[in-house]
Amino acid sequence: MSQKMRAAVLYADWDPKPDFKLGAKDIEGRQTYLGSKVWRNPRVVIEERDIPKPGPGEVLIEVKACGICGSDVHMAQPDEQGYIWYPGLTGFPAVLGHEFSGVVVEAGPGAINKATNRPFKGGEEVCAEEMLWCGRCQPCADGYPNHCERLDEIGFNVDGAFAKYIVVPDRVVWSLEPLKERYQGMELFLAGSLVEPTSVAYNAVIQRGGGIKPGDNVVICGGGPVGLAACAILKRQGAARVILSEPEPARAELGLKMGADYVINPLKEDFVHRVLEITDGYGAKLYLEATGLPTVVYPQIEQVIWEARGLNATVVVVARADAKMPVTGEVLQVRRAQIVGAQGHSGEGTFPRVIQSMATGMNMLPLITKQITLDEVPENLVTLRTDRKECKITVRLDKE
Amino acid sequence: MSQKMRAAVLYADWDPKPDFKLGAKDIEGRQTYLGSKVWRNPRVVIEERDIPKPGPGEVLIEVKACGICGSDVHMAQPDEQGYIWYPGLTGFPAVLGHEFSGVVVEAGPGAINKATNRPFKGGEEVCAEEMLWCGRCQPCADGYPNHCERLDEIGFNVDGAFAKYIVVPDRVVWSLEPLKERYQGMELFLAGSLVEPTSVAYNAVIQRGGGIKPGDNVVICGGGPVGLAACAILKRQGAARVILSEPEPARAELGLKMGADYVINPLKEDFVHRVLEITDGYGAKLYLEATGLPTVVYPQIEQVIWEARGLNATVVVVARADAKMPVTGEVLQVRRAQIVGAQGHSGEGTFPRVIQSMATGMNMLPLITKQITLDEVPENLVTLRTDRKECKITVRLDKE
Amino acid sequence: MSQKMRAAVLYADWDPKPDFKLGAKDIEGRQTYLGSKVWRNPRVVIEERDIPKPGPGEVLIEVKACGICGSDVHMAQPDEQGYIWYPGLTGFPAVLGHEFSGVVVEAGPGAINKATNRPFKGGEEVCAEEMLWCGRCQPCADGYPNHCERLDEIGFNVDGAFAKYIVVPDRVVWSLEPLKERYQGMELFLAGSLVEPTSVAYNAVIQRGGGIKPGDNVVICGGGPVGLAACAILKRQGAARVILSEPEPARAELGLKMGADYVINPLKEDFVHRVLEITDGYGAKLYLEATGLPTVVYPQIEQVIWEARGLNATVVVVARADAKMPVTGEVLQVRRAQIVGAQGHSGEGTFPRVIQSMATGMNMLPLITKQITLDEVPENLVTLRTDRKECKITVRLDKE
Amino acid sequence: MSQKMRAAVLYADWDPKPDFKLGAKDIEGRQTYLGSKVWRNPRVVIEERDIPKPGPGEVLIEVKACGICGSDVHMAQPDEQGYIWYPGLTGFPAVLGHEFSGVVVEAGPGAINKATNRPFKGGEEVCAEEMLWCGRCQPCADGYPNHCERLDEIGFNVDGAFAKYIVVPDRVVWSLEPLKERYQGMELFLAGSLVEPTSVAYNAVIQRGGGIKPGDNVVICGGGPVGLAACAILKRQGAARVILSEPEPARAELGLKMGADYVINPLKEDFVHRVLEITDGYGAKLYLEATGLPTVVYPQIEQVIWEARGLNATVVVVARADAKMPVTGEVLQVRRAQIVGAQGHSGEGTFPRVIQSMATGMNMLPLITKQITLDEVPENLVTLRTDRKECKITVRLDKE
Repeated sequence: MSQKMRAAVLYADWDPKPDFKLGAKDIEGRQTYLGSKVWRNPRVVIEERDIPKPGPGEVLIEVKACGICGSDVHMAQPDEQGYIWYPGLTGFPAVLGHEFSGVVVEAGPGAINKATNRPFKGGEEVCAEEMLWCGRCQPCADGYPNHCERLDEIGFNVDGAFAKYIVVPDRVVWSLEPLKERYQGMELFLAGSLVEPTSVAYNAVIQRGGGIKPGDNVVICGGGPVGLAACAILKRQGAARVILSEPEPARAELGLKMGADYVINPLKEDFVHRVLEITDGYGAKLYLEATGLPTVVYPQIEQVIWEARGLNATVVVVARADAKMPVTGEVLQVRRAQIVGAQGHSGEGTFPRVIQSMATGMNMLPLITKQITLDEVPENLVTLRTDRKECKITVRLDKE
Repeated sequence: MSQKMRAAVLYADWDPKPDFKLGAKDIEGRQTYLGSKVWRNPRVVIEERDIPKPGPGEVLIEVKACGICGSDVHMAQPDEQGYIWYPGLTGFPAVLGHEFSGVVVEAGPGAINKATNRPFKGGEEVCAEEMLWCGRCQPCADGYPNHCERLDEIGFNVDGAFAKYIVVPDRVVWSLEPLKERYQGMELFLAGSLVEPTSVAYNAVIQRGGGIKPGDNVVICGGGPVGLAACAILKRQGAARVILSEPEPARAELGLKMGADYVINPLKEDFVHRVLEITDGYGAKLYLEATGLPTVVYPQIEQVIWEARGLNATVVVVARADAKMPVTGEVLQVRRAQIVGAQGHSGEGTFPRVIQSMATGMNMLPLITKQITLDEVPENLVTLRTDRKECKITVRLDKE
Repeated sequence: MSQKMRAAVLYADWDPKPDFKLGAKDIEGRQTYLGSKVWRNPRVVIEERDIPKPGPGEVLIEVKACGICGSDVHMAQPDEQGYIWYPGLTGFPAVLGHEFSGVVVEAGPGAINKATNRPFKGGEEVCAEEMLWCGRCQPCADGYPNHCERLDEIGFNVDGAFAKYIVVPDRVVWSLEPLKERYQGMELFLAGSLVEPTSVAYNAVIQRGGGIKPGDNVVICGGGPVGLAACAILKRQGAARVILSEPEPARAELGLKMGADYVINPLKEDFVHRVLEITDGYGAKLYLEATGLPTVVYPQIEQVIWEARGLNATVVVVARADAKMPVTGEVLQVRRAQIVGAQGHSGEGTFPRVIQSMATGMNMLPLITKQITLDEVPENLVTLRTDRKECKITVRLDKE
Repeated sequence: MSQKMRAAVLYADWDPKPDFKLGAKDIEGRQTYLGSKVWRNPRVVIEERDIPKPGPGEVLIEVKACGICGSDVHMAQPDEQGYIWYPGLTGFPAVLGHEFSGVVVEAGPGAINKATNRPFKGGEEVCAEEMLWCGRCQPCADGYPNHCERLDEIGFNVDGAFAKYIVVPDRVVWSLEPLKERYQGMELFLAGSLVEPTSVAYNAVIQRGGGIKPGDNVVICGGGPVGLAACAILKRQGAARVILSEPEPARAELGLKMGADYVINPLKEDFVHRVLEITDGYGAKLYLEATGLPTVVYPQIEQVIWEARGLNATVVVVARADAKMPVTGEVLQVRRAQIVGAQGHSGEGTFPRVIQSMATGMNMLPLITKQITLDEVPENLVTLRTDRKECKITVRLDKE
């Protein structure tokens, strides 16, 4: 194996805005929890790098496929002042890419394969969580790794998977072995690269939203990758009717392929009326806000809950947004409803359950609407700033 | 409408065994909670009866279809001393039959259609719960109608639905309107007659067993109607692998049709080994004991739980049996497992969710393996004492 | 027993505002779900009435004590145009009063004492729910009587308990027998009259809020009867620190008596800072909004949740308010938090658990700050419009 | 600080029984998961040892107090053939002792104080979990550290705390800072040494048993340290009546001090009758089997559940035992009951909640009935083989 590899690396300038103060976990010139207040002039370059070495408890993975996430786009996208859009944890330069799958090449001392509870042998097909929860802080010890106080994130502040190789700690690696029942060759890896975004949706609707019981209806607002994955998951969980609200025709069509029974175009149809009509006046048990426009979407969801006869609705907010939702307490009271926030994909058996679901019939592959090479990453990061037709653009690294 | 109707009525003699004492809810010569200790010489006759009149809050239903339940068989089956097999609440003579659907013909004063929150108009297609929970005792007030302290049971101690007409209180009636999306004509009513037994399974695995999350495995022991319905429900809820353990080939085959992914013949195969093999060593999240042979089945389930890597298994006991299961506490401890008992089908939104699931793709019709007329009820009650090939034998009353 | 009794009756004029439309459950001239849009010129009079007769399934109770609720005040309070303040279900004329206890005098046919599952004998000390859930609509059948679609409410649209006698259906009656362990004479009835408001708080924090685990902290915003009862309940449930936010000194002091460990005066202290200080930076697991001022209170609660290290906070909204809370989804996401609405006090074993808690040491009597006679009801309804020093004013009817 | 320390070390001979096979995690001559099949001729000696050094992520703690656990007794107790009684994970020689508290003396590289999310400064008062969950296997990643697949146990297969110093990984260390509100000096450390056994009880009744709601009754079978701690915890959680079943008068008395409202002597009284009497026929919501005699105790618990009116009882099995409980499924069905197994004390916020509860009034100190020096450990390990009067014997190391 050669000593060098190619990688798509994001560079940006450390140029904090005047109101920025170095936070507890920030590192001058290198890392911050408030990306959009600090990093300027982002540029993504394909460059040659040393292949990393796995340390104790770490694994070296040959990457086969890695999807582009909206966060990748926003990290590489300057606003009018040149600051990056992405507001969160970032440390540059960093290899981007965190929705990946590949093959274990080498294991550091003591690295353990969770699937066998034994050392890796090499050759295992795997995927990984993006969140490098520490396993030692109080939230981790209490069982909430999605809220780790010492978090690192692959492709954000540590090197990611738009590269031939990546090193990750063993505890976030998950075997794709079960997927072999259904997928072979590159399909296995393409499916494997979808485990991470699907797990974000699974965490939102199943773990945080509490899921549904067979026969309940659901409404998914927003047909991005997370919303579409939620359609598949909730159909799989026995939803009577999966209703997707999405104005973009290409995504609406994809929604029907992924599990939606009905699609509403909220720009052309009366969302409230249509949901009530489809559900025979009962409304839904679970509403997913996956648009990032809560000030637009929440009042409509609230109106459905208010007018519907069904009780116990749960609104899950998974998309990030600064804006405040106007919430009428009385609606929550009269309809016995609740609102929860969802973040992350780790813990609670989410990754293994997503893999098992995909291994036994939940086909996520249609989410991938375009496959590209590593060299095409920079231009596609630009394309995705505006293109709402593509869903998941996935980088194939099998030819690297 | 004529004033008379035909009905299949069970007669038996009140002849208490020496150790029987009249209980709190027993009525000398008429009703007991301990059927097999009292009733002797059961005989089922087709006889002419007055069509009943709906009282306040009651509904008269023209029955279209009514399935035969194992309880019907056991009420009509004498043991060696001539006492009936069925051990529970019974009051004879009574028209048998409780798994029914039909059309509302007349509503008593104040009777309300839950589906519209308005009086019945007549003509509504409906089914009903078998359990006439009172809605006023403490368990009912607390939300546990399956454990009502003043329970009556349709076809057990009040007249049932092997008859042209039946009267029931409005609160146990459920609209079959949603099923019309998928079924027409007699299929609608046949499907409707399966709502009750499916709800018994739903209550067991979803409400009491807590259900599963998509990607979990399940094991169903026993391919009777409840076990088979559980296969359909849990497949619907996203089970990765539904494993049915059933020795009778006809039922095994039916299991595959209903949603089982694998069938184990526990008389010919090593149950423990096979479950571990199919689940790649992880075992199942939910085990349903639906055989009535817990002393045989539980030790095997326990052994799988012990040997499997998976945690958090729940064993749901739904079949009735006197025998004591030998339970090793340490297995529950080391594997973080639990055992729950399940009874009934009422409350918690079970009936409406079963109907919604059936309306949107959960097809229960294959459970009906034979359709008969009212006149054929007596002989089929005898057939079912030994025949394990038939699953659900359903009485059609549309020609009555 | 005499045939007449005295009662405090609310009269008002049916004079709908122009935008009012008769709703599904409204009755022209008699009853509406939108009180403040219809009823004008309220006046409370003490008048002589026939003692009511219990019908089938009903019970006649001799009232001993009945507390004044904020709803009573608002029903009798005209706004600038003369319309009543209370916005909800109302049917006048009606005897007011719903937080009551008394002694069973006579039972109608078939009325059953839930405590014994037998007919009432007469002489039983009892209290009752205020909500006359029907037990037959879909929410009731599904286990959600607080959301009954055919609700009547004692003292709102049916005659209440500011009278010597009241008739109620058996299903809402609860025995005070357990309280005799601790209370005798009028204390028993005064305690019994507090079961209803305490159950509203119990429903909010335990049933809807999910309660806490021993060692969690809680914050109660608003020291009215519900907020103060919540202090007692959550202290009882093992809260490490019960923090009450309440500006009125008399209520703050009462809060400390009821179970609060700390009181914050939100008008004089920095609420956010104080909660963080008291909880050593961890914040609380449960926040109760019991002020009716969510636009003021919610942003402060949200700020604490955001700044605190603790995860999984639940905000329970129990006070009614029209205003919209500005909710930042990201706070719910990052802190794994949720918001729920709470309404009612029925079902889920709430009343019996409150009674058992009071029977074994949860002393609610300090909530009663004043005892009055029936004749003093009208003037005290006026007093309570402005007086925030009194907590619960309770009418004694033992001398009637 | 001197380089040497004294410690109570258990030696035993590796002498496997004929049927023993080296398991996956066993190490020839050093460690096994089946202690009682391997280790012979145990002897506890006080010897001088090198003070250990904290490695990366580890902490050196000066031990102040360490309780003797039943496991310590059984590890040091030979059966008739000379094999140790304790059946589980063991690796000798090992310093015994795992219920400890102390002061941080030195932190290895990267060791983090969960309480501050910063490096230890030295001087922190702390306690620790006994279970060294790995944080990397699948159960740990899924949130079930009590079922870690790579577990080490302090004082069982790694050196424990009957010594002046101990080294442990940072992730199992918990700050006793909150206890300073209530305890000073050695009381702080004595209380701190009780956090571990109290957490075993908390995990059993709260996390695994699901706890209770205020107003529920509970029954604790067995007045050992775990049973007594459960009395305190459930009283704290709002139990109406805590009933302890315990024949030994000294422990019965201690039970009343810890929170029990009633004590039943099951050898002299009719357990079933008494529980029904005390609970007015309703029985309990939670039953804890903490005797280790499930064949004796379970049938009695089952009989109470059967005869009681209350539903939804949960039986928690926390004591280890080989014997099989005879479980009647019908009781679980008719009473809507369940059985769960409980193991461990880690995860789910148990340690911090126990510490917070103790910091705010849950006083566990009465559990310590005797304080001894390190030199007295061997003789007290013998005493406790038969003495049921002492509850917790605690070793003070402040004079070492």
